[in-house]
Amino acid sequence: MSFQLILDNVSKHIQLTNEEKARFISLLKPFKLKRKQLLLHEGDVCKQSAFVTSGCLRSYNVDKNGLEHVIAFAPADWWMADMYSLISGRPGTLNIEAMEETEMLMLSKADQLQLYQDLPKFERFFRILAENSLVAHQQRLIDRLSLTGQERYDKFCQRYPTLIYHIPQKQVAAYIGVSPEFLSRMRAKK
Amino acid sequence: MSFQLILDNVSKHIQLTNEEKARFISLLKPFKLKRKQLLLHEGDVCKQSAFVTSGCLRSYNVDKNGLEHVIAFAPADWWMADMYSLISGRPGTLNIEAMEETEMLMLSKADQLQLYQDLPKFERFFRILAENSLVAHQQRLIDRLSLTGQERYDKFCQRYPTLIYHIPQKQVAAYIGVSPEFLSRMRAKK
Repeated sequence: MSFQLILDNVSKHIQLTNEEKARFISLLKPFKLKRKQLLLHEGDVCKQSAFVTSGCLRSYNVDKNGLEHVIAFAPADWWMADMYSLISGRPGTLNIEAMEETEMLMLSKADQLQLYQDLPKFERFFRILAENSLVAHQQRLIDRLSLTGQERYDKFCQRYPTLIYHIPQKQVAAYIGVSPEFLSRMRAKK
Repeated sequence: MSFQLILDNVSKHIQLTNEEKARFISLLKPFKLKRKQLLLHEGDVCKQSAFVTSGCLRSYNVDKNGLEHVIAFAPADWWMADMYSLISGRPGTLNIEAMEETEMLMLSKADQLQLYQDLPKFERFFRILAENSLVAHQQRLIDRLSLTGQERYDKFCQRYPTLIYHIPQKQVAAYIGVSPEFLSRMRAKK
């Protein structure tokens, strides 16, 4: 298991000494899911964050009519958790599924809290991560309120350039909030 | 100007010595807006965060059809900024308006970054703030996708209990994404 991807991810925002890198890595547990396996079920309490090293996760919510709404994708180099459940310790509302065979490094909530004590610079790292994610969610809310399906599709392509030809169209449609047929017509025009 | 409200707000997540409190307070600039005055215009670069001590701010986005979409309210004891613009340094997409005469304490981005250097425990404070805000945004996205207007109204009442009889119905409607007429019928049923 190479830890280079996660060390590079962390080094975008904070600088670690070799000792600090070793300490951080010692907390990470490799984990693997097959396609369609769930990392988290709706109603579970989320007790860890996943950093994807290969493959792709998606988080989704199922409404009362059985419709799936995709909340986020996490390809390699992205973090994923049910943040509501992770922070509150209450049962979550999301399912997290592997879209293909996916390898992850898991950081438990307990270890993350310990890390803040031992290496306070990780407060900065996860502050910046939370802020960036907050901005993405806020922007997505604004987009859903004010952009057309075509414009949301164009933004999706910018945000997830590696994903667009990689994951099933119906998942992309469920993320941007259009029908699969509408998405298919938009892609045909490109 | 009393700083007790903001000190109590900060002390929910971190403990400050008297010296640290004095340092933090020295960075805050009191600011006041009249009703309907804007703190930030769409297209401006947001260079500071506002902590509301009295009154109420709202942030909103105007779509191509001229429709306003309310992104957030900030009554007393809440923080408000265009986080996208604040973090990226790029022009923002939000307007921030005082809904009534509103008093704030402003913390500039430069001072906030300096604060992280001088008092690293503020990394923790703003990490927790960003995480809580992220969770609220994510939950709102899920709600918009999967709850009825009535359910979203009930959740709004839980989230902003002090606001519901305090701000114009059309603003509440623009936040939860229903027509003012629909909201009026829901309220009549209560």
